[in-house]
Amino acid sequence: FQSKLPNVGTTIFTTMSQLALQHQAINLGQGFPDFSPDPKLIGLVHEAMLQGHNQYPAMPGVPALREQISLKVNKLYDHSYNPETEVTITSGATEALMCSILALVRSGDEVIVIEPVYDLYIPAIELAGGTPVVVPMLAPDAQHGNYRVDWQRVRDAINAKTRMLVLNFPHNPTGIILTENDLDILEAIVADSGVFILSDEVYEHIVFGNALHCSMAKRSALIERSIIVSSFGKTYHATGWKLGYCLATATVMHEIRKVHQFTVFTVYSPMQYAMAQFLQDPAPYTELSRFYESKRDYLANGLKNSRFKPLLSQGTFFLLADYSGISTEPEAVFVRQLTVEHGVTAIPMSAFYQNPDAAESNHQLIRLCFAKENATLDAALDRLKEL
Amino acid sequence: FQSKLPNVGTTIFTTMSQLALQHQAINLGQGFPDFSPDPKLIGLVHEAMLQGHNQYPAMPGVPALREQISLKVNKLYDHSYNPETEVTITSGATEALMCSILALVRSGDEVIVIEPVYDLYIPAIELAGGTPVVVPMLAPDAQHGNYRVDWQRVRDAINAKTRMLVLNFPHNPTGIILTENDLDILEAIVADSGVFILSDEVYEHIVFGNALHCSMAKRSALIERSIIVSSFGKTYHATGWKLGYCLATATVMHEIRKVHQFTVFTVYSPMQYAMAQFLQDPAPYTELSRFYESKRDYLANGLKNSRFKPLLSQGTFFLLADYSGISTEPEAVFVRQLTVEHGVTAIPMSAFYQNPDAAESNHQLIRLCFAKENATLDAALDRLKEL
Ligand SMILES: CSCCC(=O)C(=O)O
Ligand SMILES: CSCCC(=O)C(=O)O
Repeated sequence: FQSKLPNVGTTIFTTMSQLALQHQAINLGQGFPDFSPDPKLIGLVHEAMLQGHNQYPAMPGVPALREQISLKVNKLYDHSYNPETEVTITSGATEALMCSILALVRSGDEVIVIEPVYDLYIPAIELAGGTPVVVPMLAPDAQHGNYRVDWQRVRDAINAKTRMLVLNFPHNPTGIILTENDLDILEAIVADSGVFILSDEVYEHIVFGNALHCSMAKRSALIERSIIVSSFGKTYHATGWKLGYCLATATVMHEIRKVHQFTVFTVYSPMQYAMAQFLQDPAPYTELSRFYESKRDYLANGLKNSRFKPLLSQGTFFLLADYSGISTEPEAVFVRQLTVEHGVTAIPMSAFYQNPDAAESNHQLIRLCFAKENATLDAALDRLKEL
Repeated sequence: FQSKLPNVGTTIFTTMSQLALQHQAINLGQGFPDFSPDPKLIGLVHEAMLQGHNQYPAMPGVPALREQISLKVNKLYDHSYNPETEVTITSGATEALMCSILALVRSGDEVIVIEPVYDLYIPAIELAGGTPVVVPMLAPDAQHGNYRVDWQRVRDAINAKTRMLVLNFPHNPTGIILTENDLDILEAIVADSGVFILSDEVYEHIVFGNALHCSMAKRSALIERSIIVSSFGKTYHATGWKLGYCLATATVMHEIRKVHQFTVFTVYSPMQYAMAQFLQDPAPYTELSRFYESKRDYLANGLKNSRFKPLLSQGTFFLLADYSGISTEPEAVFVRQLTVEHGVTAIPMSAFYQNPDAAESNHQLIRLCFAKENATLDAALDRLKEL
C-alpha cells in the first residue's frame, strides 16, 4: 500500500496526550483548559436540544450566530462583515483553515509560513497541492526576550508564485503578538501582490499587558485579501465542542463554502444556537485576557524557583521554557523523559518545525500550557522544580 | 477571481430548504426528521457536559463510542472491527466520505459512481484530483417498479485506472437496497482488481419488509477493500448533531486519519460520550425500520388519492414520485412551482445526475422525504392532492 498523502505522522498533540494518559502525567502539552465552560452556556445547549434544534442547520451556520460574530468583530475591530455572505461557522478553526487552503491553493502555488509553525499548515498546503515556503523567525537575543517575525525575509519570499501567507498571532507556540507597526509593514509588503493572508487568530481574546489584538480586520487594505479564522473553543473553555468560524470577502467565502459543504456540510446545531444566545450578553473580552494573564504569571513566577527559564509570552495560553540549565538532550527526548520520569507533559518546540529532527530545530525549549487550574499548575511546578 | 474548484453550486438540499423557508412551504426536500431524538439521549449530552467532557477528545473519537460501534457491527454483520485502529468517529458521514476520498484518490485515478448519485461524491472526487466515471442504473420497467443497478456496466467500467467504486445502499434517492445476490456479483466483479469500495451505508437501519441490510461488512472478501461509512444522525433523529463514523482496515484507516486530523482534528466530545452511553442499551434496530416503514406506507397510500405515482421504496426515508400525470415541466421547474404555488418542497431527481439540465436526467420524478410527523405528511398530502 502506497500512501498518496504528505508524509505526516500523528500530530504531536495527540502523541503527547496519549503518553500523558499512559503515564498519568500532568498534561501541560496539548492546548486545552482543565476546567469547563460557563454553566450558563452548558444550560443553553441543553435548552437548544429541548427546543428541537437537532436537525441540519443552514450550511454556512445558524444565522443568529453569524450575526453575533459580525457584531463582535465590528465592535472590536471596526469592520462590518456581512453575516449572510462573509461569515461561516466551521467545525473548529481546523476545518476553517483546511477549507480555506483547499479552496484557494492550487498545484504550483507557493504558500509562505513562518517558523516555528503550527503543525497543521504545512500538511494542509501539501494536501492541496501547494508548496510550503518556510520563513524562520529571528531567534531571541539579549535585547528581545522572545522570537520575532523577520519581515524582511517574508518580503523576500514573495514572488509571482506566492498565493498565500499564513499568519498566526497571538502566536502558538511562542506567545508573541503583532503590533500596529507590524500591520503597517505587512500592508506595505503585500500592497502590490495578489497574495491572500490566512490569519489564524484563535487566541485573539488572550493578549496580555496593555496590548490589544491586532486583527487583520483592523485594516481595510488587509481585509480585502484576508481570511480570518477564529474559535469559540479557546475563548469559552470548550475546545471539545469544535466550534469555530471564518471571515472573508464574499467572493472568497463563496469558494470556501463550496469546500465546507462537501467537507462537513454544516456544523452541529445545538452548540450554535446556544452560543448565539450566550453572545447576546457577552462578558468583556478583557476579562479573559486578565484571567489568563494571571495564570501566565502564576506559572512563570513558579518557574523562577526551578531551573527552567520561561520566555515572555504576550498572548495565547502557552509559554516557552528553556531547559538548557537542566539537560542537553534534544527536545523530543527531553519531553519523553519529562513525562515518563517526572510526570509532566509538554510539547517540544521542535514539533513546530518542518524538520523536527534537524539540529536547527532543537533549541532546548518546551511549550507549556497554562490553561489549567492553579492546583494543577502547583502540582506541575512541584515536579518541575525537582529537575 | 478564478475558481480552482470543481464547478459546483450550492447543494440542492440547501437551495430547496431556503426556498421552503422563504415560501413557508412544507419541507419534504432535504432529508431530516421534523421530530427530535430520544429525550434520554438529550439528557445524556447534558450530563456529559456537566461531567466535564468539554475538551478535545481523542483524535479518532471517544474510545467507548468506538467500542460500541464495533460491538454493534459485530452483532449485526458478524465481523469484528478493531476499535483502536479500524473505527474513526467523524463529523457526520460527510466528513468520513470526504476524508476517505482525499486519502485514497490521486490525480489520474478513476472513481466509479452509480447514477442517480448523491451530490457529494462527484465534487469530492474532483477535489481530490480524480476522474468520476458515471455508470447509469437501469430505468424502471413494467416488471421492476424501481431503478436497478446495472452490474454489467459496473463491470465494464472497471479498468487499470479504477481506484474506487462508490456505493450507497439503501440508496438515496431511489430507496432501492442490495440483496445477497448483489453482494455475490459485486464480489466477483472486484475479485481480481485493486479497487476500493467506498460504501455509504447511512440508511443501514432503515430497510423495509423482511429485508436485512446487506453491508459490505458481511463478506470478508469485501471488508478488506471497503470503507464503510455510517451516521448516527439518520438513526437517532439527530441529523444536526453531525455525528458519523467510518470503518476500514487498519492500513486504510491510518491514511483516513491523517486527513481527518487536519480536516477537523476531532469531533465534539459531549455527543460522543452521550452516544457511547446510550448505545449500551440499544433499542433493536428493527424498531426504526418498522417506524419508517409505516411512514412510507402512510405517504405512499396518501398519494394514491393524488395524481402522483410513488415508486416502491425498500429503504431510506425517501421515496420517488412520478408527476407525469400532472405536468410536463422539467423537474427543476416543477419543484419550484410545487414550493411557490402549492407550498410543498421536494428534491428534483435530476439533482442526482451529473448533468441535471440534460434531457436524459429529467424523468418527471421528485424525491419526497417521509421522516416527518404524520400531521406534516397529512398537510403535505392535502396540498399534493390539489394538483
Ligand atoms: C487541535 S489539537 C491541539 C491544540 C492546539 O492548538 C495546541 O495544543 O497547539
Ligand atoms: C447533508 S444535507 C442533505 C441530507 C441528505 O442526505 C439528503 O437530503 O439527501
